[in-house]
Amino acid sequence: MELDSKIMEKAATLIEALPYIQRFNRKIIVVKYGGSAMADEELKRNVIKDVVLLKLVGFKPIIVHGGGKEISRWVSKVGMEPRFVNGLRVTDADTMEIAEMVLNKVNKSLVSMVNELGVKAVGISGKDGQLLRCDKKLSNGQDIGFVGDIKEVNPKILFDLLEKDFLPIICPIGFDDNCQSYNINADDAACAIARAVKAEKLAFLTDVEGVYADPKDKDTLISELTTDHMEELLNSGNIGGGMLPKLQNCLDAVLNGVSRVHIMDGRIAHCLLLEIFTNKGIGTAILKAGDDHFYTPDEK
Amino acid sequence: MELDSKIMEKAATLIEALPYIQRFNRKIIVVKYGGSAMADEELKRNVIKDVVLLKLVGFKPIIVHGGGKEISRWVSKVGMEPRFVNGLRVTDADTMEIAEMVLNKVNKSLVSMVNELGVKAVGISGKDGQLLRCDKKLSNGQDIGFVGDIKEVNPKILFDLLEKDFLPIICPIGFDDNCQSYNINADDAACAIARAVKAEKLAFLTDVEGVYADPKDKDTLISELTTDHMEELLNSGNIGGGMLPKLQNCLDAVLNGVSRVHIMDGRIAHCLLLEIFTNKGIGTAILKAGDDHFYTPDEK
Amino acid sequence: MELDSKIMEKAATLIEALPYIQRFNRKIIVVKYGGSAMADEELKRNVIKDVVLLKLVGFKPIIVHGGGKEISRWVSKVGMEPRFVNGLRVTDADTMEIAEMVLNKVNKSLVSMVNELGVKAVGISGKDGQLLRCDKKLSNGQDIGFVGDIKEVNPKILFDLLEKDFLPIICPIGFDDNCQSYNINADDAACAIARAVKAEKLAFLTDVEGVYADPKDKDTLISELTTDHMEELLNSGNIGGGMLPKLQNCLDAVLNGVSRVHIMDGRIAHCLLLEIFTNKGIGTAILKAGDDHFYTPDEK
Amino acid sequence: MELDSKIMEKAATLIEALPYIQRFNRKIIVVKYGGSAMADEELKRNVIKDVVLLKLVGFKPIIVHGGGKEISRWVSKVGMEPRFVNGLRVTDADTMEIAEMVLNKVNKSLVSMVNELGVKAVGISGKDGQLLRCDKKLSNGQDIGFVGDIKEVNPKILFDLLEKDFLPIICPIGFDDNCQSYNINADDAACAIARAVKAEKLAFLTDVEGVYADPKDKDTLISELTTDHMEELLNSGNIGGGMLPKLQNCLDAVLNGVSRVHIMDGRIAHCLLLEIFTNKGIGTAILKAGDDHFYTPDEK
Amino acid sequence: MELDSKIMEKAATLIEALPYIQRFNRKIIVVKYGGSAMADEELKRNVIKDVVLLKLVGFKPIIVHGGGKEISRWVSKVGMEPRFVNGLRVTDADTMEIAEMVLNKVNKSLVSMVNELGVKAVGISGKDGQLLRCDKKLSNGQDIGFVGDIKEVNPKILFDLLEKDFLPIICPIGFDDNCQSYNINADDAACAIARAVKAEKLAFLTDVEGVYADPKDKDTLISELTTDHMEELLNSGNIGGGMLPKLQNCLDAVLNGVSRVHIMDGRIAHCLLLEIFTNKGIGTAILKAGDDHFYTPDEK
Amino acid sequence: MELDSKIMEKAATLIEALPYIQRFNRKIIVVKYGGSAMADEELKRNVIKDVVLLKLVGFKPIIVHGGGKEISRWVSKVGMEPRFVNGLRVTDADTMEIAEMVLNKVNKSLVSMVNELGVKAVGISGKDGQLLRCDKKLSNGQDIGFVGDIKEVNPKILFDLLEKDFLPIICPIGFDDNCQSYNINADDAACAIARAVKAEKLAFLTDVEGVYADPKDKDTLISELTTDHMEELLNSGNIGGGMLPKLQNCLDAVLNGVSRVHIMDGRIAHCLLLEIFTNKGIGTAILKAGDDHFYTPDEK
Repeated sequence: MELDSKIMEKAATLIEALPYIQRFNRKIIVVKYGGSAMADEELKRNVIKDVVLLKLVGFKPIIVHGGGKEISRWVSKVGMEPRFVNGLRVTDADTMEIAEMVLNKVNKSLVSMVNELGVKAVGISGKDGQLLRCDKKLSNGQDIGFVGDIKEVNPKILFDLLEKDFLPIICPIGFDDNCQSYNINADDAACAIARAVKAEKLAFLTDVEGVYADPKDKDTLISELTTDHMEELLNSGNIGGGMLPKLQNCLDAVLNGVSRVHIMDGRIAHCLLLEIFTNKGIGTAILKAGDDHFYTPDEK
Repeated sequence: MELDSKIMEKAATLIEALPYIQRFNRKIIVVKYGGSAMADEELKRNVIKDVVLLKLVGFKPIIVHGGGKEISRWVSKVGMEPRFVNGLRVTDADTMEIAEMVLNKVNKSLVSMVNELGVKAVGISGKDGQLLRCDKKLSNGQDIGFVGDIKEVNPKILFDLLEKDFLPIICPIGFDDNCQSYNINADDAACAIARAVKAEKLAFLTDVEGVYADPKDKDTLISELTTDHMEELLNSGNIGGGMLPKLQNCLDAVLNGVSRVHIMDGRIAHCLLLEIFTNKGIGTAILKAGDDHFYTPDEK
Repeated sequence: MELDSKIMEKAATLIEALPYIQRFNRKIIVVKYGGSAMADEELKRNVIKDVVLLKLVGFKPIIVHGGGKEISRWVSKVGMEPRFVNGLRVTDADTMEIAEMVLNKVNKSLVSMVNELGVKAVGISGKDGQLLRCDKKLSNGQDIGFVGDIKEVNPKILFDLLEKDFLPIICPIGFDDNCQSYNINADDAACAIARAVKAEKLAFLTDVEGVYADPKDKDTLISELTTDHMEELLNSGNIGGGMLPKLQNCLDAVLNGVSRVHIMDGRIAHCLLLEIFTNKGIGTAILKAGDDHFYTPDEK
Repeated sequence: MELDSKIMEKAATLIEALPYIQRFNRKIIVVKYGGSAMADEELKRNVIKDVVLLKLVGFKPIIVHGGGKEISRWVSKVGMEPRFVNGLRVTDADTMEIAEMVLNKVNKSLVSMVNELGVKAVGISGKDGQLLRCDKKLSNGQDIGFVGDIKEVNPKILFDLLEKDFLPIICPIGFDDNCQSYNINADDAACAIARAVKAEKLAFLTDVEGVYADPKDKDTLISELTTDHMEELLNSGNIGGGMLPKLQNCLDAVLNGVSRVHIMDGRIAHCLLLEIFTNKGIGTAILKAGDDHFYTPDEK
Repeated sequence: MELDSKIMEKAATLIEALPYIQRFNRKIIVVKYGGSAMADEELKRNVIKDVVLLKLVGFKPIIVHGGGKEISRWVSKVGMEPRFVNGLRVTDADTMEIAEMVLNKVNKSLVSMVNELGVKAVGISGKDGQLLRCDKKLSNGQDIGFVGDIKEVNPKILFDLLEKDFLPIICPIGFDDNCQSYNINADDAACAIARAVKAEKLAFLTDVEGVYADPKDKDTLISELTTDHMEELLNSGNIGGGMLPKLQNCLDAVLNGVSRVHIMDGRIAHCLLLEIFTNKGIGTAILKAGDDHFYTPDEK
Repeated sequence: MELDSKIMEKAATLIEALPYIQRFNRKIIVVKYGGSAMADEELKRNVIKDVVLLKLVGFKPIIVHGGGKEISRWVSKVGMEPRFVNGLRVTDADTMEIAEMVLNKVNKSLVSMVNELGVKAVGISGKDGQLLRCDKKLSNGQDIGFVGDIKEVNPKILFDLLEKDFLPIICPIGFDDNCQSYNINADDAACAIARAVKAEKLAFLTDVEGVYADPKDKDTLISELTTDHMEELLNSGNIGGGMLPKLQNCLDAVLNGVSRVHIMDGRIAHCLLLEIFTNKGIGTAILKAGDDHFYTPDEK
């Protein structure tokens, strides 16, 4: 019986995945998902499929998502003007109300997509199970409204949902002792959660390819960044506004028990799968100085 | 040492609660909460306190809530006109989007209030854990949009949350196989859930005192209604529009394993507590014909 | 619908109990019960009701009881003379036999009363499960017979019974390696058991209102006594014979992990309930110096 | 190296026990213990050692004991007169009080002896865990006081204690809904308990060798009695007063799930051990008609 | 960033596996492995990799292996002559001894290969945990030695090993009550085990492509065979000697709770993976008449 | 009724075993079994019976066996010459293959014998569950083939089998990272396993009576040897070749958590039983200096 070479390649691809599946078995992987990758329905479906596959082969993925563009759209819709200070949304009471509504709607739409693939998801916010307790975050000393600074993560609800085999999907809304809601930056939330659950991996699906040594030169993409080179890079002055806090978060995660953080381009179909299951590195990996390069095991 | 009589009465009240606490120990009680009782912040806090107390003394309460007035407010806010057919909201795609956002917002505000009292709540919709699978519901054969008819309840997520000691709060949004969201009548959702978890009790906190034999005569409040008198009443022509489907739901619940259904006036402070813990009956109780009157145990 | 103010007060009382129920959820509370409060059948029933209520709302009560008066009655009944040295019963072999019989009888009568309220109790002595291992206790160097000094507490049987949802009731009989029975002072037993199970609270239901700064002046009842004031009090010379070892026991308990000890008047109906569930302090509370006054939480 | 034949016989005896140990592994064996065998301290210690050995090799023994002689002694001690009607003790309130005290004392002395051998026993009465619920038993229609007729056995406490690896020791005191204590015939209690826990074996340690076809002829001891021969024997008129209800109990047990009942002479040292572990049958075995003779497995 | 099409195909292949991974999650798959596929080291490694991958993505594979050729080699090696009657090995005591040694050696070599891939295997025979109890199998009434006919499968050891996350590997040696070893046909063993554990799938890795309608015409390979066509085929006279008992086994398995049996060519690299994870059917599938074709789910 | 003295002695023997049964309850006992004791079928059956009895009375025995003589027999059978260097078998690839086959055969024959007595055994090698990871062992720097030096013991498989109530039987074959098999000295394996599972006792059934102070004088058998006298003995020059590594192993075990090691003559019927259950010490016990002589508890 003849089997065409394409079929044989399929087998090879599955076998290639074996050491990675083994390595991440029962490990928690936090996926931060936002930006353009969320706008395109096709891309969204691809991301969800990737995460569902991770779940099915034995990993324990958790999704943390944003929804900034959709919030702005709804703020405008009710006749208000979205305002930002230093890249942070000015969040008065009305905006906060809209933000919470919109983020929860986005949350449940992701739940539905996972449902459709036959895996049970549960969508929660940082209020549920008292997951994300906040204070008000100031922007250079300025009060910009109900923007939250995470004070305490209570991961019990996450461990409980994972134990019961659900896929948790989290929208970054927090609370304080006075029942006030806060809008939290999704990167901050993902990072704090990854630390609290001691995730093996934290992956940021973003709108950029990764970290550039020189953002103006697309050929300077850094594929691996250790913590000791990070400082150098942060001091180079080459890192722009949006990337700066993200890198700070990555550094924080890696220094606090998350084995590896990835910044990758969520607009590439199945980037998550390719990063995890193949030798082809996607985007930038941030890891502790001295960690060995165990992510590309040689097949025996 | 003299203790004033007021203190002694307090002790008496607590002791009076003993047989009720005993009776409902580890039993599931579904509380449908909506209407005017939700509009008043003070009443809302009272309801939440009651449910939290039920949780703390060993019951397993589940809240199902509505939010119709708030939905209408937001529909208007974005410049649309709320429309109803036979008392059911006409729910086009835009309205559905708003309804889901608003109900989730209400949901999380209830979660916050429970949090504040030191009990951990988890707010979910009917999408989470694939709780409420729907079809489209027609109104006398007429398509009125994404109004859901519950086809299947999957209570696993509820049992899991109860086992992990959370208080589940549910907003009545469902889903179908095509990832479409549906707005479900909160009474329908509460009833279907009470049946699926085999609740001991289902309590409707409404805007009326209970069921009247003659709605025009406030002196005809029925305090106990058995299933065999129900039919008679339904045929009397005295039951008005809003009450009709509610009674149908009650009948359905009682005939399918829920021991007792209560319709009570959510505007009375702590009505839930008084109904459950004292001999003072509140509103109307619906029970199976032949069931004994075990809810008012004589103290030994 | 009008609800009279009395009904509303009932609701208020139940709601008032909420923070206390929350605070003691799944905590162990050891109740030492003896003296006059045991002689009156009505009071006895009240105490038992209180403990059953504690059990039903989620606490884990353990009863340790005495029975001195009943022992004396039976010693006399068989024609012997009860004898005491320094307040300790001289316990020869015959007296020991009677004491054990009487205490077990008292024990089982308490079990019956709990049974009757629908909660399952198990009555054990310090021999069962090798709970209380003893040596002979001397009274100022004098051998006064089989009076036990607790050498070792083996709380496994208590944890097992609590886990299986029983209410343990303990009579203070111990054993030694030679199969000899010992009569143990019930205060000593309660204190040793509270320490061994790391009880949250130890409550002595006694024949006095509490501790007086000056026992001759009923107006000097101390409602709160911290460990550092205790020494001062013990040195004042104002504390009489019976209270002295009791206070020593209290100090010992508080210094060894029991959060708070209460001395209260068991002759006040439902004193236990009032102490735990209301802001009205009953008797004297003994606590560690520096512990905050968390027992009267302000309602939010 | 020479080993004397005595040592080799020891090995042989242990090996001989192997199939029996295997057969009763994790099986419940109820031992009714009373009469003369309880009066002699040496015999008592032997019985206890046997039961402890059964426990240690993996069986689950439960002891049910009597104490009639000791009760009579104490009734006399307080100046009353023991009275009997048809072999049943007339049990007025005073007698009941003494009976309960004495039986509990006997109970705890057995607990102590087991303790001493390093196994943890828990002594309970039929009140604990609501084990034995009773009605009043009449003697030929005559009220003879608080003699109990078992209405309901609630074995939860026994299963819980066995699960936690305790050896339960039970004294035959029951209760009714009004908190009244009852004295129960120990044979009745043992039989009811054996049925309720579905014991593999029920052994009566008595003052007779077993059942005689002709009680006047000691050579007519019956070593095996099947249920179908039982009736014949009961009708023969040869069975005397004391043995009659005992045989009725045995028949009842065997017909209700207890595999085999033994009546043996408790005055023979280690009779229990010899019966169970050797081919030497002791006393009379009662078994269902048609049951095979599996108790003397041939060694392979 | 450009990703070459090959990389994208890899992602597509992984995603294609998703519905199959989902379908077989926690299902038991028995793999019968023998013949030529075992002779080639490269093929052997491929089969083991496939099974390890199945294990890692959440299935519960069990391997049953043969070793006929290796047995013959060793029989010759010690100077004996392998003999067969009707395709069954004549198994005298000496041959049995060699067969058991050889099969255990093969068994442990498979264990080693699984070990090497980081999954823990446990190799057992049908003696371990009393897995396969046998009688002697006659060949047309003729005694051909210690060839076993399976009388009873005791799958406890398999469930225990699977629960503890081991991969069981079984060699087909059985036992009888007299401690005698038996050589069992590996197909028989695989089939009996698949039935006993209620396997989802039983896959035979053989030396042929599958079942042919006409074995002389390689173009008549049957890709799907339902039980009702089976009889027809068996009666056609076209099925040769070796395939006949195999098909009988398949029929037996499918009629007794195994959802689907596969006969495939073990010499095709990764045939198992391709069969399970792709739409490309390999070999012949045997299924119950009327079963739907759920094995090729359409991707949504 | 008269019971002859022989019967009474049986009872006495069983009672004598009580404190030992108590002491070793749920303790792990590793039995190294090899040499002449394995050659005689009658002795073999006796050893197996002893171990089965240990299992049934609540111990957790593990058997580690050798099979040197049988290996040599098979090496000769295929026309090869067994070779030894310094008492270690020269193990080329062919010899290794035979050794593995023979040891597995011996292993399964022991499994069968345990099966026959009604206890479930599971026979494994050091490859199963990755139990014994090895390196090559040199003999005075000389490569003698695949003789294994244990590098790592992974006892999970043993704990899992014990938890599931199986009796593990282990043959000393190890593996390395390259899938290579190694022949391990059975004494080494038993010792390493006893350490890894923290066995209470390690018993070597050998061909000698025990350790002699002077091997030429059979009257110098040492019945108890503490670790501090061990060195003295090792330095005396009196200890011969075969005993030297065995004593080194014993010392190693006792210093690493095994309470007591026994060297005894496996040719004495039931030596294991006699050693454990009677006051008659058999062979030589090795224990830590300072350990009390708790193995001969006085009966109370």
